[in-house]
Amino acid sequence: MPTKVKALATAGPQAQFQRTTIERRDPGPDEVVIAIQYAGICHSDIHTARDEWDGTTYPLVPGHEIAGIVTATGPEVTKYRIGQRVGVGCFVDSCGQCEHCRLGEENACLEKTIWTYNDQGRDGQPTHGGYSQQIVVRQDYVLRIPDSIPLDRAAPLLCAGITPYSPLARYGAGPGKKVAIIGLGGLGHMGVQIAHAMGAEVTVLSRTLGKQADGLALGASAYYATSDPATFDKLKGSFDLIISSVSDDIEVDSYVKLLRLGGALVFIGLPPKQQSFKVGVLCNGHRIITGSNIGGIGATQEMLDFCAEHGIAAQIELITADQVSATYDRVVAGDVHFRAVIDLATL
Amino acid sequence: MPTKVKALATAGPQAQFQRTTIERRDPGPDEVVIAIQYAGICHSDIHTARDEWDGTTYPLVPGHEIAGIVTATGPEVTKYRIGQRVGVGCFVDSCGQCEHCRLGEENACLEKTIWTYNDQGRDGQPTHGGYSQQIVVRQDYVLRIPDSIPLDRAAPLLCAGITPYSPLARYGAGPGKKVAIIGLGGLGHMGVQIAHAMGAEVTVLSRTLGKQADGLALGASAYYATSDPATFDKLKGSFDLIISSVSDDIEVDSYVKLLRLGGALVFIGLPPKQQSFKVGVLCNGHRIITGSNIGGIGATQEMLDFCAEHGIAAQIELITADQVSATYDRVVAGDVHFRAVIDLATL
Repeated sequence: MPTKVKALATAGPQAQFQRTTIERRDPGPDEVVIAIQYAGICHSDIHTARDEWDGTTYPLVPGHEIAGIVTATGPEVTKYRIGQRVGVGCFVDSCGQCEHCRLGEENACLEKTIWTYNDQGRDGQPTHGGYSQQIVVRQDYVLRIPDSIPLDRAAPLLCAGITPYSPLARYGAGPGKKVAIIGLGGLGHMGVQIAHAMGAEVTVLSRTLGKQADGLALGASAYYATSDPATFDKLKGSFDLIISSVSDDIEVDSYVKLLRLGGALVFIGLPPKQQSFKVGVLCNGHRIITGSNIGGIGATQEMLDFCAEHGIAAQIELITADQVSATYDRVVAGDVHFRAVIDLATL
Repeated sequence: MPTKVKALATAGPQAQFQRTTIERRDPGPDEVVIAIQYAGICHSDIHTARDEWDGTTYPLVPGHEIAGIVTATGPEVTKYRIGQRVGVGCFVDSCGQCEHCRLGEENACLEKTIWTYNDQGRDGQPTHGGYSQQIVVRQDYVLRIPDSIPLDRAAPLLCAGITPYSPLARYGAGPGKKVAIIGLGGLGHMGVQIAHAMGAEVTVLSRTLGKQADGLALGASAYYATSDPATFDKLKGSFDLIISSVSDDIEVDSYVKLLRLGGALVFIGLPPKQQSFKVGVLCNGHRIITGSNIGGIGATQEMLDFCAEHGIAAQIELITADQVSATYDRVVAGDVHFRAVIDLATL
């Protein structure tokens, strides 16, 4: 019999979050029931809640940066036991059989990745995310949170950690490599910490020098304002890897010119409009433009273990259930350092 | 004392090619004098002759697909001897000391790559290309043409061969890889042959099916018309690597969607305008947009040896010195199969 649990839902693009109850199914044989303790607020939650990407189904319970404790397990669950600290990220299911799933890229399942919210589960019911007391997930889509990371600071890693981690690992950030991070928000502040922990030399490229002290404290060795045109002259040909964590349009060619031979500009933020580039600028030094989108379950677990090993986690502001709507405005204004996390004990 | 040699020059963007004489310097200690036998007509020659890229200095003697015979050597030349079959490509000098030169990417010299024509040599004199009887080049910038490749069919390899070879080698075209080549002109027809010889499964994507028989004969196993929208549905997610050899604008997102996870769209043709893409399309499957621009001396020699080993070379139409201006129009019309080569004995 489904369980009624408390949740925060929004009824439409202009609506405020309200307390409500939703139903969570009984765990299937391979499913884990998780008491959610903390849920990070990702910019994607805001885009979806406000229907800025179209296709939002209301009422919506967002949240895909979920940390909590296992409270029950189905009879075939072998990976988790009651009381264990666990997380759930952007997706809760996939086919598990296709080429991409077999490569560990369940987030690009050829059949259908099932997203944590604003999607439909295998049972035909809408999926609801982490702004709630409980979630039920197949064990293969649950992550283990190492003991050394506090649960509230772990929650944002499930999206804001894996998102920069994937391209940093893919493009070999490490000793001798120069990495720039564009933007020092939720994604960017994790990118700086992870790249630094990997051994790379890290530069932050931010509109102003307003967060310079934060950037250096997080591990950057240099910090430049992109509002100053001299930055683009000075840094020409400097970086092996540039990660763009902002969701505004950027002047792509200006950043490509900052890359070394074969260097890559990786978008992890999602500007909504078409971006443009000059082919000749790419050809000169066979430089790369690419994008990256979270990561599979294996990579996400690797990222959590890496963060634990290197003593890094999200820098957060803990908020109550009543503060979510107001916090959305603060996130959009860039006023949160660096991730807002909902304490679900306040629900 | 400089030597006067015959050449073909154009006096301005609208002018026809005329016979003229130019001076070639005496060889320096490490320089090789080459009697040019054949010069390929590259689309870049046309862009430059017509000042379509701006910055052309007239009179202009184009030509950077050069094949000939060594006729004299400076006293310190150790790599070449009189009578040897050699080639010269897009550049004739670089600093040799910078990071890029030391990496074998002399074509991206941080000090200055000296281009074969429309540039200035170390002696302060304008550089003149292969539409002439002779050229004098430092031995380190001369290529050895294997005996098995006829000189006329070797000439185009110096640009149209190395240009597709570089990204095919860089992105590991080979057995089990699916490669698409957009456009079946000078670059494209070499791309098909080289990718096929590397062991990849090759598809041609061309506006129409007009050259299908040629494409299959060159080694492609499939050929699709890009004017047919069904092509883009059918081939979604198919390719590890797509090489765009055309210089028209392309719908970037449509081609990116044809890539598999982590696949790359590589521009080797140069559309003059800004191209545009949607970041989300790149993020989905961390797909890559990049460009490539000829290759260094080491890579160019490797390409020539590879072509000899696999019995491939350019498919050419041999023309006389009098036919150059008319042939330019035919190249622009896509009417040449697949590279026009000037027989300099007719000069």
